[in-house]
Amino acid sequence: MTEAGALAGDADRRFMAAAIRLSRRHLGLTGTNPSVGTLIVRDDGAGPRIVGRGVTAIGGRPHAEPQALEEAGEAARGATAYVTLEPCAHHGRTPPCANTLVAAGISRVVGAASDPDPRVSGKGYAILREAGIEVFEGVLADEAADLMRGYLTRSLKKRPEVTLKLALSADGMIGRRGEGQVAITGAISRAQVHMMRAESDAILVGIGTALADDPALTCRLPGLSARSPLRIVLDRDTRLPPGSVLARTAREVPVLVTAASDCPTPRRIALAEQGVDFLAVDVHEGHIALPELLEDLAARGIMTLMVEGGAYTASAFLDEDLVDRLCLFTGPAEIGPGGIAAPLDPAHGPAGFRLLREARFGDDHYREYVRAG
Amino acid sequence: MTEAGALAGDADRRFMAAAIRLSRRHLGLTGTNPSVGTLIVRDDGAGPRIVGRGVTAIGGRPHAEPQALEEAGEAARGATAYVTLEPCAHHGRTPPCANTLVAAGISRVVGAASDPDPRVSGKGYAILREAGIEVFEGVLADEAADLMRGYLTRSLKKRPEVTLKLALSADGMIGRRGEGQVAITGAISRAQVHMMRAESDAILVGIGTALADDPALTCRLPGLSARSPLRIVLDRDTRLPPGSVLARTAREVPVLVTAASDCPTPRRIALAEQGVDFLAVDVHEGHIALPELLEDLAARGIMTLMVEGGAYTASAFLDEDLVDRLCLFTGPAEIGPGGIAAPLDPAHGPAGFRLLREARFGDDHYREYVRAG
Ligand SMILES: NC(=O)c1ccc[n+]([C@@H]2O[C@H](COP(=O)([O-])OP(=O)(O)OC[C@H]3O[C@@H](n4cnc5c(N)ncnc54)[C@H](OP(=O)(O)O)[C@@H]3O)[C@@H](O)[C@H]2O)c1
Ligand SMILES: NC(=O)c1ccc[n+]([C@@H]2O[C@H](COP(=O)([O-])OP(=O)(O)OC[C@H]3O[C@@H](n4cnc5c(N)ncnc54)[C@H](OP(=O)(O)O)[C@@H]3O)[C@@H](O)[C@H]2O)c1
Repeated sequence: MTEAGALAGDADRRFMAAAIRLSRRHLGLTGTNPSVGTLIVRDDGAGPRIVGRGVTAIGGRPHAEPQALEEAGEAARGATAYVTLEPCAHHGRTPPCANTLVAAGISRVVGAASDPDPRVSGKGYAILREAGIEVFEGVLADEAADLMRGYLTRSLKKRPEVTLKLALSADGMIGRRGEGQVAITGAISRAQVHMMRAESDAILVGIGTALADDPALTCRLPGLSARSPLRIVLDRDTRLPPGSVLARTAREVPVLVTAASDCPTPRRIALAEQGVDFLAVDVHEGHIALPELLEDLAARGIMTLMVEGGAYTASAFLDEDLVDRLCLFTGPAEIGPGGIAAPLDPAHGPAGFRLLREARFGDDHYREYVRAG
Repeated sequence: MTEAGALAGDADRRFMAAAIRLSRRHLGLTGTNPSVGTLIVRDDGAGPRIVGRGVTAIGGRPHAEPQALEEAGEAARGATAYVTLEPCAHHGRTPPCANTLVAAGISRVVGAASDPDPRVSGKGYAILREAGIEVFEGVLADEAADLMRGYLTRSLKKRPEVTLKLALSADGMIGRRGEGQVAITGAISRAQVHMMRAESDAILVGIGTALADDPALTCRLPGLSARSPLRIVLDRDTRLPPGSVLARTAREVPVLVTAASDCPTPRRIALAEQGVDFLAVDVHEGHIALPELLEDLAARGIMTLMVEGGAYTASAFLDEDLVDRLCLFTGPAEIGPGGIAAPLDPAHGPAGFRLLREARFGDDHYREYVRAG
């Protein structure tokens, strides 16, 4: 932790944790803006109390700070603001959030993550300091950054944050050749996967999975069906059948086929008429060039991508070092001979990753890894 | 023109002009990549001849250079490459185009526009020079940049290139209060407008126009209907009627309503069920904050935006200095009393713009202005 973090007290960390929880509320719902939380806290002698709360609005506007300041009103004067991301510093029609904090009379700002956007980076905090505001940076920075990782990865690497999700049998298989979707994990794990989908901007599978499993790839949790993200199929030769669930539901939840050629084949025309979109890709040694694809997806506003398999696609993303987070759901049953092995060592976890979280979901074992270092 | 431009000969300018014409072919069709043209030309003593031609593929991949080099094959060795944009320099799965030119044995590169993307800027030309290739930059740079202005504006300003189109009556009016769509210009001008739509990533109108005219805002030229871009309505309070042409056709050509609140009102729910999308906006002093809106559109991959009115919306974009290009179509008839005046002086043109082109389209007079300086 930074020196600034060390200077912040326990109360600061507690309020920052609350601001981070608040920011979670609109995760995956703020378009190309990160979901940020802001708390305004004042202490008039009888202990600190929260006088304003803000979270980036659904869609990404307005930002969290003006909302929290509006709730606080005059009580913001002399108060502390907790912001999970460095306040923005660039002018549009509305004033930059850093200036709004100054204008409201905030006297102390505690910040978590820094903003890598070159129009903000360091400038937001500088505006505050120049106005005589006391600033503590980096308080619970990792926890806050974790929730904004799509925004941060897109800013820094010009590609979406990639989460690879795989369901493994007890013997480390992801399915059985020629058998389509095999139920490997239980209901709680599946609900968890649907929740992850709701928090992602897009889901991707290889055409092998689309053909074998005919999946819907939607979010089917009560109340969250409207949060199904874009569905992407790696499909060099446009083999997705017009009769597939994906194609038949393309007008409800968008489907993007990444194909190497834009030749108007009968299949392509049929899919386009069903509302399927296409994205042109580079092919390199027979394979879709994934870094270029990710760059184009980021340019279209995709900040978080969930890769759901199959084996071939998972290996390709791992081999090219394009996975930021790996979520393994291991079920209790074995698949045995004829199984498709997962492209990683299920006992030791993948090389180059560190274990972040472990949990039990019913009979299943959940492990979440992040890129080490 | 730069010194490098002066060094290039007449033949260089002629071939660059041909490369620029080639790049036009996929204008508006290359997603978030610019449409670039490349020619490979060699002279074995009997005068220069074109041995390879490439234009960024529909969708944006592959880039122009590898396609032109593939056509040229061995003939690329010792040849000159004409590229309308600095060749890319950053690594993905496919090699950067600058390296591909080196590997093909090109001995001379004539370039038009430079790439402002920090991962390319200057680096593409540097790779070529380091490999001993003779490089002439900036040949017909303005002409080439003109066709890539969306890409360049988005890179430099983080917003789309904005073209304002207005149809004016002979007396400088854009319509008549309470009369809906008035035919001001003729068939040739209208075809021109539809062509402009096909080359844009998105079209925008104010809710006033959506209510008064009930427009379709699609591209209705033979063969180009599939090229209708995203349709955007500035509509703070979600007043767009579910019975409007826009809403009723939202599943064929996407519609985005920019609204201030995401409250699930019955109207919003009805529109969403028809397939209308929503984008949250900041409101400042009662008006949608346009710079913030443009920033969010750019983040979603919109590089070129055509603003089609009405008067209120046109003034707002002009007042905030957000118009890069202004296309005025002036018809022969007068509208007279009760007309809605255009938000600019039709005789002298808008302040801060210079006249780029003038033409007659049937009985109409066309003038195209660009931001001066
Ligand atoms: N347990 C789980 O979590 C899970 C999840 C998903 C799927 N599965 C299972 O996995 C099996 C399907 O796996 P699979 O390996 O056969 O297929 P896959 O990974 O879904 O699809 C592979 C195909 O994707 C295309 N592709 C093109 N470029 C690619 C690139 N750069 N990287 C990766 N793929 C590219 C290739 O098709 P082209 O011929 O077009 O190049 C390739 O054959 C099914 O049995 C399914 O049930 C299990
Ligand atoms: N000749 C032409 O080229 C042409 C082209 C288009 C239209 N027209 C004519 O123009 C007339 C309509 O023009 P109009 O001025 O009444 O309407 P308009 O410009 O189409 O729409 C104005 C409305 O857009 C909304 N809006 C919200 N934020 C805005 C912002 N920052 N900037 C601009 N608008 C914002 C406002 O509605 P809120 O109340 O929601 O804030 C405002 O009332 C019609 O008669 C039509 O036929 C002519």
